[in-house]
Amino acid sequence: MITRNPHLANLKAGYLFPEIAKRRREFAAAHPNAKVISLGIGNTTEPILPHINAGLVEGAKKLGTKEGYSGYQDEGLPELREKISKVFYKGKFSIDEIFISDGAKCDIGRLQTLFGTGVKVAVQDPSYPVYVDGSVLAGAAGGWEETGYAGITYLPCTAENNFFPNLDLIQPNSLIYFCSPNNPTGAVSDHAQLSALVETAINKSCIIIFDAAYSEFIRDPSLPKTIYEIDKAELCAIEVNSFSKPLGFTGVRLGWSVVPKVLKYKSGESVHADWNRVMGTIFNGASNIAQYGGLAALDDEGLKEMRALTDFYLGNAKLIRDALQKLGINCIGGDNSPYIWAHFPGRDSWEVFAEILEKHQIVTTPGAGFGPAGQGFVRFSAFGHRADVEEACNRLQAIVTQ
Amino acid sequence: MITRNPHLANLKAGYLFPEIAKRRREFAAAHPNAKVISLGIGNTTEPILPHINAGLVEGAKKLGTKEGYSGYQDEGLPELREKISKVFYKGKFSIDEIFISDGAKCDIGRLQTLFGTGVKVAVQDPSYPVYVDGSVLAGAAGGWEETGYAGITYLPCTAENNFFPNLDLIQPNSLIYFCSPNNPTGAVSDHAQLSALVETAINKSCIIIFDAAYSEFIRDPSLPKTIYEIDKAELCAIEVNSFSKPLGFTGVRLGWSVVPKVLKYKSGESVHADWNRVMGTIFNGASNIAQYGGLAALDDEGLKEMRALTDFYLGNAKLIRDALQKLGINCIGGDNSPYIWAHFPGRDSWEVFAEILEKHQIVTTPGAGFGPAGQGFVRFSAFGHRADVEEACNRLQAIVTQ
Repeated sequence: MITRNPHLANLKAGYLFPEIAKRRREFAAAHPNAKVISLGIGNTTEPILPHINAGLVEGAKKLGTKEGYSGYQDEGLPELREKISKVFYKGKFSIDEIFISDGAKCDIGRLQTLFGTGVKVAVQDPSYPVYVDGSVLAGAAGGWEETGYAGITYLPCTAENNFFPNLDLIQPNSLIYFCSPNNPTGAVSDHAQLSALVETAINKSCIIIFDAAYSEFIRDPSLPKTIYEIDKAELCAIEVNSFSKPLGFTGVRLGWSVVPKVLKYKSGESVHADWNRVMGTIFNGASNIAQYGGLAALDDEGLKEMRALTDFYLGNAKLIRDALQKLGINCIGGDNSPYIWAHFPGRDSWEVFAEILEKHQIVTTPGAGFGPAGQGFVRFSAFGHRADVEEACNRLQAIVTQ
Repeated sequence: MITRNPHLANLKAGYLFPEIAKRRREFAAAHPNAKVISLGIGNTTEPILPHINAGLVEGAKKLGTKEGYSGYQDEGLPELREKISKVFYKGKFSIDEIFISDGAKCDIGRLQTLFGTGVKVAVQDPSYPVYVDGSVLAGAAGGWEETGYAGITYLPCTAENNFFPNLDLIQPNSLIYFCSPNNPTGAVSDHAQLSALVETAINKSCIIIFDAAYSEFIRDPSLPKTIYEIDKAELCAIEVNSFSKPLGFTGVRLGWSVVPKVLKYKSGESVHADWNRVMGTIFNGASNIAQYGGLAALDDEGLKEMRALTDFYLGNAKLIRDALQKLGINCIGGDNSPYIWAHFPGRDSWEVFAEILEKHQIVTTPGAGFGPAGQGFVRFSAFGHRADVEEACNRLQAIVTQ
């Protein structure tokens, strides 16, 4: 038989979230009477709100009519691209700089195609697994060396640096993955921090892939919701975003990327033109039904629902954070983000994960799964029904770690 | 700035179909009164039939209810995977060998990840562009040399070999892309031909990616609708398929791949395990609404509608083929496939494309866009409203080429 892509052998373990799901299933099988509560995988739990849901339903109905039927959408419905530019970017981008996709994770996988195997990669540590795993698949990560990949620059985000990395660690000509509000730490970078990031990227000839998938959870008006609030960001940054969490579209699949036309490679060639070509070649558009839902979400009524849904999950986050803090556990996040990053100093995070599951039947995500600097942390996700979150908080009163 | 993936510079031109769409737009702008009929891009035109459409509508409604809401689907709804195995493969595959996706093109882009840059690639010539372009993006195609890529083995499918290639041209340890019913030629390989293909793949340690996206257009019961009708195919073949054409789901986005567990790399490692990992890492599942539509399509009522819709497009195909043949133009396809491959011997196919557009305001696709052996051919697509197809046939009576 033909040979395997050698980069695949470099993937250290299974993808984190299926691994968590597997451990949950194993636990449930061994304890059939346990009522397991998941605060692990960030999977949305609440129904899609009425106005946005009506957008989906009407979108589906249209396809059954001669007048409303549509086939391939290519880069996405022009009205949706225009609304995204208007609602999220004050109309700063032309519609052909907004690319509709089936979600941020899928876009991140495709984006790596632009830079090839030779690119240096820098990631916040801890970080969402696809930045590293996608780089491994693309052959840009090098071999595994004990706690990380040789070709990846890990930028530790710890309590010591207030979860914003030392930018001096970034090597010139790197691809920088940066996520704010951060998954998993819940930390949100402020204007000064993101300005420093953009300045570093420009000075060091880097491109930032800015993951803003949790931007709609920001409530502090001083915090930037997009990298393009920072001067000159369009010269060095691509942004990916998603409707998954703010609309409950994790199963519906809808997101977008922004690739400004002024963004260039070292050679002067247009990143935008390449992205257009890559999307046309290996992607065929997001579902038109999902796009009709997205359109409904961006009118006045839809924006109110998006606010209500994110408020709900932020309410969960506050309950979890308060419960943990009452127990004397240090944590950040949960105020402008749906994730709470809880510190268990000196402990192995997989062990804490297992202990919380065993003692309280609560699924979390072990911090070490997000990178070496995640060791000693556990991530609590605020996606859950309110009653389950309340019960989880009660169960946590009998605290796990002393 | 950081450098561009060098493979991107290897992509010879724009992706074929956006190029066709661009030429159509340019023509329409220059001739604002012309009624342009598209028989070019294979984009479906007919509304989704009632029972399947109700599946989509109900699927969308469910997401607005507490009981019906669902988030991430991972590899797809188990019921859908089970039905696919039952309906298309007589239950031969377990549900975890069926992976639900957002379409065949997207799967083909991801599949290349399994084999990396070093793999040799063989394609039918002409062929659907993503096989070659996806290989170029993955760095497996080598440089462009006049009529093709140095690293790709082109297997000419011509009138002389009855549009089935000489399998002796395939090099050992290759990845073979094979499409039947073929896009663009419309030729369908018979049981003996596919048996020879499987035998060749096994003897030469190759893996076949079998694209069966048009299988539901097969009406001749002696012709295989899946590679797995051939003995031992599961040892050497992955199959991709799609609901785009048989259900009119080009905009809805739903397809699947079959990766048998017995399929191994040379090293003995499981291709299935890697595909599971790749899908989990850079994909997040097809839209759940689309999947509910797919479920409706696979019950008795849905299967009848699928048959009715493919019958309708095959009716178009017959009209186009008859019109061309009356004009003395040799063509194949259109009986068990929605594409008609029309021969204009000795002529440049982009020139014939331009002439048909100018003289008859009909958009086709130039054969050379599908590979060097497509030169001298033009593809007519049978996807269109009946009235438009009839008008196109009338316009063709004033024939273009003498």
